[in-house]
This record gives sequence, C-alpha cells and structure tokens, in this order.
Amino acid sequence: MEFTHGGDIYRNPAEYDFSVNINPLGMPEKSLEAAQQAILSCSAYPDWRGEKLCGALAEAEGVRAENILLGNGAAELIYALCFCLRPKKGLIPVPSFGEYESALLAAGGVPVFENLREENNFCPEAGLVKAVTEEIDVLFLCNPNNPTGSLTDRELLVKTAQKCEETGTYFCLDECFLPFVEREGELTMKGMLEAFPHLIVLRAFTKVYGMPGLRLGYAMTANKELLAGMRACMQPWNTSIPAQAAGLEALRDENWLARTRQLIGREREYLRKELSAGLAERIYPSSANFIFFKSRNDLKERLMHEKVLIRSCSNYRNLTEGYFRIGIRTHEENRELVRRWKRAAGECR
Amino acid sequence: MEFTHGGDIYRNPAEYDFSVNINPLGMPEKSLEAAQQAILSCSAYPDWRGEKLCGALAEAEGVRAENILLGNGAAELIYALCFCLRPKKGLIPVPSFGEYESALLAAGGVPVFENLREENNFCPEAGLVKAVTEEIDVLFLCNPNNPTGSLTDRELLVKTAQKCEETGTYFCLDECFLPFVEREGELTMKGMLEAFPHLIVLRAFTKVYGMPGLRLGYAMTANKELLAGMRACMQPWNTSIPAQAAGLEALRDENWLARTRQLIGREREYLRKELSAGLAERIYPSSANFIFFKSRNDLKERLMHEKVLIRSCSNYRNLTEGYFRIGIRTHEENRELVRRWKRAAGECR
Repeated sequence: MEFTHGGDIYRNPAEYDFSVNINPLGMPEKSLEAAQQAILSCSAYPDWRGEKLCGALAEAEGVRAENILLGNGAAELIYALCFCLRPKKGLIPVPSFGEYESALLAAGGVPVFENLREENNFCPEAGLVKAVTEEIDVLFLCNPNNPTGSLTDRELLVKTAQKCEETGTYFCLDECFLPFVEREGELTMKGMLEAFPHLIVLRAFTKVYGMPGLRLGYAMTANKELLAGMRACMQPWNTSIPAQAAGLEALRDENWLARTRQLIGREREYLRKELSAGLAERIYPSSANFIFFKSRNDLKERLMHEKVLIRSCSNYRNLTEGYFRIGIRTHEENRELVRRWKRAAGECR
Repeated sequence: MEFTHGGDIYRNPAEYDFSVNINPLGMPEKSLEAAQQAILSCSAYPDWRGEKLCGALAEAEGVRAENILLGNGAAELIYALCFCLRPKKGLIPVPSFGEYESALLAAGGVPVFENLREENNFCPEAGLVKAVTEEIDVLFLCNPNNPTGSLTDRELLVKTAQKCEETGTYFCLDECFLPFVEREGELTMKGMLEAFPHLIVLRAFTKVYGMPGLRLGYAMTANKELLAGMRACMQPWNTSIPAQAAGLEALRDENWLARTRQLIGREREYLRKELSAGLAERIYPSSANFIFFKSRNDLKERLMHEKVLIRSCSNYRNLTEGYFRIGIRTHEENRELVRRWKRAAGECR
C-alpha cells in the first residue's frame, strides 16, 4: 500500500511538522489528564456504546444521542459507511481527502470524480448538484475541503442534500474541519439530519481537539437503519477507553473553540502575509486551519533540508506538482517556518 | 444491534467482573507507564505502519515483520479479513466467538456451522477437515476455543491447514488465548505460515497483556496479497499511539508469560476443585484462562445479586441455557467468587 497522507513523521523525521492539519494548541489539558488516568482502567473493555460520550456529544451538538455513532477516528467511519452501503458508484469532488476513494474502492465501488475548478478557488459549484444522479449511491463532500480550505456555502449544501433525497444518494458530509471556521454555526448541516435522512455528518476530535494519536471521531445521522448498518460493519469495541475519556473532557472545555479560532484567525493572517511576500506563487483563500498554495515544485524537498515537513499535494486527484498544504501552527512555529523557508528559497539564488 | 459479549460493566455494574477472559495480572507496569507517557505524543498521528512494534513482534514471534498487520484489537482484523475476502461461505465450528459470524454477515457471507460435540468436550474432531470443501471460502477456528477452553491438537491443525490449501479456503486461526496455554510452543501454527499461504494467525495484546481498553491485536500471514488486501480494508491509522507504545513495552517483559501461566494454572486448579464441590453441574476441561461449565439456569442472575458478573453462554450457537464461562482471576477474587456463589446457591435452599 502506498501512503498518501501527511504526518508520516516516522519515516520523515523533522523538527517542525506542518504536513498535518491539527490544532496547534494540541489537546486540552484536562483531556490529557483524563486519558492518562483512563490508561489505568484499560484492563476492562471500552464501553461499546460509548454511552457517556454520546450523551455529552448529543448535548454539545444539539442532536439525539441515538443519532451518533463513535469511530476510531472519523476515518474508520468512512470505511464503515462504504462497507455498509456497498455503493456501486460514489461521487467525489476533487481534490479532496484521499480516504473517500480508498474506502470506496475497498468496498468494491467505483469513484466518479467531479473536478473542482481552480478558477473558482476549488469551491464546489452548482455543477455538483447536477452530478448527483440516481446512478450515484454516495456523495463525499468535505466542508471546508481538505486540502484546499475552500467552503461550500449553505445554499449549495441544502440544494445538494435535497437532490440527494430525490436521487436516493447518501450524502456523507465531512465537517471535521468546520469547528475551525468562524461561520461554523451558519454552515453546519447537523441541524438538518431529520430533514435529510440520507445525510451523514462526520466529525472528529482528531483535528480540533488535537488528538490524532488517540483516534476519536463520530458520525451523525437521523437514519437509524444506516447507523445500525454502519455499526454492524465495525467491531463493537472500536473506540478505546482513553479516547472516550479524552473526548468527554474536551467537550467540557468551554473556551477551547474560541481560543482555537482566535489563534488560527490571527496566524492565518500572519502566514498569508508572509507567504504573499514572495514565498508562495499563489495562495488560495482558506477558511480552515491550513493554507493551500502553489509554489516551486521542489519546495517540500528544500524545506525538508531545513527539517520542516510540509504536505505536497501532487498526489491528489485534479492537482499536479507545485501544490502544497501547510497546517497553521503557533506563532513561534509559524515564524520559524517563514525563517527556514526564506533560507531554503535563498539557497537557490 | 444486540450486544452478545461479556464485559459490559457499563450496563451491568458489578464489584467483580468474571464475564471477561483477561489476564488477572492486568497490564505490565511498564506498558502502563509507556501508555501514559505516550498520551503526551497524541497530537501526532500514529505510525500507520507500526514499524517499531512490528519489528519487535517479528523478533518475539519468530516471523517476518512484513508478515504482520496490526489491528485495533484482533476483532478489527476479523472484519478486515471478511471485507477483504468477501467470502460467500464461511465455516465456523460452534460454539465459538460471536464476531466471526458477525463479521462474515457484515461482509455479505453466509455462515456454515460445524457443531462441536459436547460428548467430546467441544473439541474439534476429524469432521472439521471433511467440512472444509471448495465451497468454503474461509474457516474460523479459535484455539483454545472461546468459550469452551477446548484445544485443537497439532495433528488436526495441520490436517486442516493442508485441506484448506487443497480447497483454496482461507484458514483464520485465532490464537488470542494460546499464550495462556502451557503447551503453546507445540500448538501454535505461527511457524507454518510459509508452508500454508492460506493461513492467517490472529493474536492480541488484549487478553494476555490485559489491555482490552487500549485495543491492540495483530494478524500474521505469509500471504502478502492478503495482507495488503486486509490493510486496504482499514484506515491507515487504526492503532493508536498509546496502544503501540504499551505493546512495545509488553514484549520487553520477559517474565510476564511465565508469571501469567503460573497464576492461571494454580487458580484454574483451585476453581475447578471448588466448582466441583457442588457449585457447578459439569465442568469442561479448559486449557485457557477461563472455565466453561454447566450450572443452574439462573446462576447469572443469582450472582448478579451478589454483585458478581459472569458470562452466560446461552446466546452462543450450539449452546442453550445453563452454560456459563468465568474468567480465572487472582486468588483473592476467585475466593470471593466462590464465597458469593455459595451464598447465592444457599439462598435457594
């Protein structure tokens, strides 16, 4: 298997990892403590239902607890969805997160790609609604999109969901990065689950609560049959005790989202300014906690010499060499990135 | 979904949980420490390859690192195997672990059951080899078997593996409980992977290193295509950072297996003696870390009154009411079980 993601620091040791798009604040302190404490309970099985965590999530998200399914990261739920639906055809606007295609293929499905247009900053357009037909069993949409950071606006989301109901297409809407977006409340579709029984919203603790190493995500849908079907495609004990404990504490941190958005907003501005000043060739507007841009083809290698790891996006569908993604980190880290980038760029003069 | 396993202490609060079959020693101290320490690194992704752990496992098990695939518990690997093979028919000697059937059904397969005979203490017999035909795409065998504790002997294992090669049947041999068995070295088939390319041996840290709440298991097979196929049916980051860290430390504890077997051997004898003295109606010979027996139908409820949780096996195929399994615990716990059981039995006089 070829690995096609960022964050592989195990084979690419760097001093700074900008290849992932994880909250630079890391994990909430109380989540850390709760996870460490929970290690002491690990000689028991995890709660296969995740009853406490689902209850807390229901309250936090404003959905019913029975509409929530926990996953070993949201990625596991993408596979469970595909194995449950066994879709013949799946529609994926591209570029986007590679696991949609991998999961679809693993379940024997054929991916159909809808190219997002660079002229429109890779934002989904009305063509997406047209591309949803009765032939399409499932649509994967990431909002904001990974790796481009582009948003799908509310009107298009609703139109797409409506079309999916008409065509009987399941609509897997990946909102894993949405908590980083200021306009989250206006853009999320989690309030529309009852209206759109084909809608599945994915979320994760991974990104916004900085715990990719612990693995915790969840799916929300009002479609009970689908939820039961997805559960049947996974082992009962899929989320670990420390992950459930960390998640529960994370939801209790009332300032986390505000602190996160403030930091991301400020640092996105800082990085945009610095990158615009001759470092990147073109920067695409991003509403998320990462920046997508075009630069010289050998940028990744040059930065690797400086012990900085960034994500080359050349292996994404509908992209070529010269596209990159960096996660927005703390100011100290971002400043260091800029410093080393300038040095790396200087080397070629 | 109906939950059909032991260990659901979240809905069955008890002071003593004998419903699971986990090492009563818990987790090795160094694994605990390593897992707690690893929580601090969880803002990175896990190593999707599990390179360090696979290397250590290769050395410990005497197999090649590239023949090992890590899972979020062995249970995840059962599902991955089924989704990869998409078997039409799967053979399961019963009673046995319920997830074989669940995974088979989830992948669209039809289970074929081979009834193990009570007259033979539920040990697999020559009929098993006959039941493997070209129609059977996969065979699941648990050795020692869960919940019966019965062993399949070496000769029958080899004959079964040979037949599987003839018929093109994948042979999933679950050795999760084998480390508890004194004769492990003689019974394991892990040394036969190259000889039998259809053989997949499952193992887990869950049971023997007492970490079900952390989730860590692995599959071993010399069949590279199968391994790649199973990997493609799972997300890349399926095993968490703390689980990998705990596993790595567990393998370094050189006395663990000896200590475990000593305790289990001694306590199995103690419990057998006590249970034989009028508590259980019939006790089946178990080579594992649990005891399978027949008793009054309402034993579970009676013990629940005493705040002791045991595993009723009435929902296993080929079993009825009145069959139970208890995990072998520490002497203090076992003594307490006996004390409360006597009290519970007395109540009905």
